[in-house]
Amino acid sequence: MNEADVVMTVQELNEFLAGAFPGAPRLYAVEDVGADGIRMRLPYDSAQIRPGGTLSGPTMMGLADGAAWLATLSRIGPVALAVTSHLSIDFLAKPGPADLLAHAKLLRLGRRRSVSEVRLWSDGTSIDDPVAFATVTYAIPS
Amino acid sequence: MNEADVVMTVQELNEFLAGAFPGAPRLYAVEDVGADGIRMRLPYDSAQIRPGGTLSGPTMMGLADGAAWLATLSRIGPVALAVTSHLSIDFLAKPGPADLLAHAKLLRLGRRRSVSEVRLWSDGTSIDDPVAFATVTYAIPS
Amino acid sequence: MNEADVVMTVQELNEFLAGAFPGAPRLYAVEDVGADGIRMRLPYDSAQIRPGGTLSGPTMMGLADGAAWLATLSRIGPVALAVTSHLSIDFLAKPGPADLLAHAKLLRLGRRRSVSEVRLWSDGTSIDDPVAFATVTYAIPS
Amino acid sequence: MNEADVVMTVQELNEFLAGAFPGAPRLYAVEDVGADGIRMRLPYDSAQIRPGGTLSGPTMMGLADGAAWLATLSRIGPVALAVTSHLSIDFLAKPGPADLLAHAKLLRLGRRRSVSEVRLWSDGTSIDDPVAFATVTYAIPS
Repeated sequence: MNEADVVMTVQELNEFLAGAFPGAPRLYAVEDVGADGIRMRLPYDSAQIRPGGTLSGPTMMGLADGAAWLATLSRIGPVALAVTSHLSIDFLAKPGPADLLAHAKLLRLGRRRSVSEVRLWSDGTSIDDPVAFATVTYAIPS
Repeated sequence: MNEADVVMTVQELNEFLAGAFPGAPRLYAVEDVGADGIRMRLPYDSAQIRPGGTLSGPTMMGLADGAAWLATLSRIGPVALAVTSHLSIDFLAKPGPADLLAHAKLLRLGRRRSVSEVRLWSDGTSIDDPVAFATVTYAIPS
Repeated sequence: MNEADVVMTVQELNEFLAGAFPGAPRLYAVEDVGADGIRMRLPYDSAQIRPGGTLSGPTMMGLADGAAWLATLSRIGPVALAVTSHLSIDFLAKPGPADLLAHAKLLRLGRRRSVSEVRLWSDGTSIDDPVAFATVTYAIPS
Repeated sequence: MNEADVVMTVQELNEFLAGAFPGAPRLYAVEDVGADGIRMRLPYDSAQIRPGGTLSGPTMMGLADGAAWLATLSRIGPVALAVTSHLSIDFLAKPGPADLLAHAKLLRLGRRRSVSEVRLWSDGTSIDDPVAFATVTYAIPS
């Protein structure tokens, strides 16, 4: 896949996101979109902390799911009804009290589904030292 | 495994849960604990709804993760620092606007990890018609 | 799902299996098919042993994959071109030198995919003490 | 992780592999080992073909499992008893009749487990157009 396949800009993705969850607080945002995937940021919020002083698993799963969703939409356009059909996540290290970053990249985009890999890491550390790694399948409505 | 292995009651698990997340709203609760696993309930809340009128994926993943955690603790006692090391979830059907129920059962409990299966279904429907199915591994600190 | 949904018998499934892999040795066989799923058996063969004296992971994965495939076909008929789209497996205990049994049950059967849970255990032990547990998704051609 | 962490050469890994499965035919081989992971090759063999003319799922799972195993050993030395504890694989496209290549890279190496990502693709095509993608966890004996 190359950059020409990208059909939504960072701004369009963020506007779509805000419109899709009108009642919800704006938790995360797209920062970059390109041929190699999209990057998102979840600002640090002490309410996400679980016992042991680390970000909760559901916080990380939510970001991975959202990043795969928006990576898919960046290629197929604003199809709100694409739904997750499978998510698998390995938690690799405990993230510290910092913004959480995600990079989602499509492994495969077909007519009926997309499969993405998502890498999560803490701001201030390297993407090569991820705190979690997920693969996510979205079913695309026909 | 048999019921004799259960070391925490429903009340103890719910008190532990409330204490572990003191600043968070009480989202879900344990309803039953026994030889066959634990059952939890997430009351319906319109804030969890995503486009298409269904419960969000992260809502379901959070419940599956929590149910596997408490199923583990029901057998090993209140070890707050047990952390998820892997979660895999298949989304099978869109849950409607109803309470979400979870049944978590240990497949394996070792010294270093537990592996659970978790079945999610909507209140008013059958556990044999699940909306999602997850397997969750918790790492147990030594 | 109920027994009425089953459209292939044990004999038909085994004949289909033999015909689908004409050049391959007959490794495993269906033993039972019913409303609750199918049961398969992989006879013990010392060639499957890996270091440590246990059955190899690929041997177990192959059986889980095959069991989910045949559980799907038992409901939709002999569609050879159904292909695995996802498999997730937890290895729970080391199986000893014995036949390996599998029970596969459909969690969801849609027009485009089936999702099954598969439990593997050693002959002579209990299905409630599994050596591995898998979830398998098959894509059904339209 | 950097190249200095690699403790086994290509030749040592292949000799270890041959010794670990003395009775088995030599199916695959390590071709490269470096800071970025290891590359393996499974020569094409018509016996691996399943209905539809594609390589079987178990063939791909076996290669992914083996590649993650050897990627782990390349960093910790010849520990034959490391065992797979979890494998998740997405099948992305049907591989054609060609050698199958695998690239395995450690996402995390701890004292008790390794987590690897493995990308499979057909010889003659690009690694960026994978036929399957797996994550594999190995438990490391203490």
